[in-house]
Amino acid sequence: MPMSQKKTILTGDRPTGPLHLGHYVGSLINRIPFQDTYKQFVMIADMQALTDNYDNPQKVRDNVLEVALDYLSIGIDPTKSTIFIQSMIPQIAELTVIYLNLVTVNRLKRNPTVKTEIGQKKFGEHIPAGFLIYPVHQAADITIVKGDVVPVGEDQLPILEQTNEIVRSFNRIYKTDILHEVEWLASKTPRLPGIDGKNKMSKSLGNAIFLSDSADIVAKKVMQMYTDPDHVHVDSPGKIEGNTVFMYLDVFDSEKNEVAEMKAHYQRGGLGDVKVKRRLIEVLNAFLDPIRTRRAEWASDKAQVMQILFEGSAQTCEVASQTMEQVRQALHLDYK
Amino acid sequence: MPMSQKKTILTGDRPTGPLHLGHYVGSLINRIPFQDTYKQFVMIADMQALTDNYDNPQKVRDNVLEVALDYLSIGIDPTKSTIFIQSMIPQIAELTVIYLNLVTVNRLKRNPTVKTEIGQKKFGEHIPAGFLIYPVHQAADITIVKGDVVPVGEDQLPILEQTNEIVRSFNRIYKTDILHEVEWLASKTPRLPGIDGKNKMSKSLGNAIFLSDSADIVAKKVMQMYTDPDHVHVDSPGKIEGNTVFMYLDVFDSEKNEVAEMKAHYQRGGLGDVKVKRRLIEVLNAFLDPIRTRRAEWASDKAQVMQILFEGSAQTCEVASQTMEQVRQALHLDYK
Repeated sequence: MPMSQKKTILTGDRPTGPLHLGHYVGSLINRIPFQDTYKQFVMIADMQALTDNYDNPQKVRDNVLEVALDYLSIGIDPTKSTIFIQSMIPQIAELTVIYLNLVTVNRLKRNPTVKTEIGQKKFGEHIPAGFLIYPVHQAADITIVKGDVVPVGEDQLPILEQTNEIVRSFNRIYKTDILHEVEWLASKTPRLPGIDGKNKMSKSLGNAIFLSDSADIVAKKVMQMYTDPDHVHVDSPGKIEGNTVFMYLDVFDSEKNEVAEMKAHYQRGGLGDVKVKRRLIEVLNAFLDPIRTRRAEWASDKAQVMQILFEGSAQTCEVASQTMEQVRQALHLDYK
Repeated sequence: MPMSQKKTILTGDRPTGPLHLGHYVGSLINRIPFQDTYKQFVMIADMQALTDNYDNPQKVRDNVLEVALDYLSIGIDPTKSTIFIQSMIPQIAELTVIYLNLVTVNRLKRNPTVKTEIGQKKFGEHIPAGFLIYPVHQAADITIVKGDVVPVGEDQLPILEQTNEIVRSFNRIYKTDILHEVEWLASKTPRLPGIDGKNKMSKSLGNAIFLSDSADIVAKKVMQMYTDPDHVHVDSPGKIEGNTVFMYLDVFDSEKNEVAEMKAHYQRGGLGDVKVKRRLIEVLNAFLDPIRTRRAEWASDKAQVMQILFEGSAQTCEVASQTMEQVRQALHLDYK
């Protein structure tokens, strides 16, 4: 399929911390095939990260590089994917301001994703306006590169609905068809729990294994992993359901037969947690080792990493300015 | 005083209609001395006009040129003032998005100016988000050019308070002093009522005399002007208070003694409305004639007018990009 016929996909992350195995399994892993099947833009969403980290910009700044290193080390290839920094695309802000006229305040407040997150973040009466409008900002992120497809979790679907509402309003009001609706690409990958076995993996909950963790730290974290709390003696039977270590083995251990055997052994008794954990440590470190190696290589030349981000941002700017030219025409703002 | 020591003033208008005598007396007239005493930026606020005219962009587009012609014809001198089009300064949108994180939704809703206007505009439950946030957009307009002084009516003071709140928050949170608070320059000019004598002059109320009105139209409008409704016979005494024609003469007739005599005559009886109106027609047309001549000259070369706006916008962009560079540094978004 020639380049021009490829659909455009937008993926990305908020640079609020290094990426972890949860990110990997939930989304990063998909970006490797995406970069062949799609025209892939990978956005480091620093502006969005600032909406609820506005008082800690250094954290956002530092993590832009960390996230970029994570991308490069897992195999996102800058010759195939366009990695860019959101704040380097001023057209996104321009488009956001234009879209804000097409959305009512009440509509923003009713957005289920935003409602849930406002509760979680404990803003109380102090909801930053930038947070309330972030779905509009995301609509601009997606449409500025003419995204066709966006892979997000089901909890983020209201954001895509908001985007498509804006697209329809824009095309109807300005009698144009320059914007098109975006499709949701549902992720079929499992959601990996944190090492506590209870919550989604998250930096703030302290239950994450990062792609950048050393072998020792991975070993330590796996040793703390939640298993079967009733499995006190090695000889007694243990439970597989809800046993985090086995969940991880299911995802990362390619020797499916051996895992099945271990499960049976664990269930009938005689296989200790420590032994299973040691296997997981080996498996995880075998998986992470090449990532660590590539990370170390890239990290030794941070200027080159920044160069990649600058080039990706410049390419994105070019696409964005083409979109804005069309938007300006539609809005009769194309002064001549 | 050397150029660099001049304070910066930001003035401007929403291009939603041609400018009228109310604009002239209330603000345009001041911009002539301002262009010597200040570094003056004059903004044609097309983006702000779109917040409540998003469904009629052609109206906004057309009035950008009309407003520019009004500016040039009253003597705003593009070699002394920087006239620019708001939408041509993408940095304003960038700064708006950054400021939105520093303002809460509740704070925006409590803004008295916005509250009043939301009532007037009958949005009901359908307040466009762009309208709610327009004070933040204005804070960006003012601070992107490092405005020191803004001349606005008293009803717009809450907008300046919002700007200064944002400036203080920004400087505190980002430990900087790059932004400074803006001063209000109260206008000492009278508020000119419309020809109905009741309301502020306004295009939508149909009670305005435009700077671009022909002599005939001015005559017709003055003839419709509200005077003293009880002054039915020429011989009976008439009232000066609330008599629109005399209010206009007070503003536009330089022969103060003659006006005083006419007032006395009118009050004791024997001076008819038509006679007073004829005088006002003469006075207004004498005032408007050189404006009309200059307007016709500029209007014969619209490309040159647009060129002036483009050059002013390019100059503003330069200032704006310096401000954004400082803002990016403060926010640690100055990637290197």
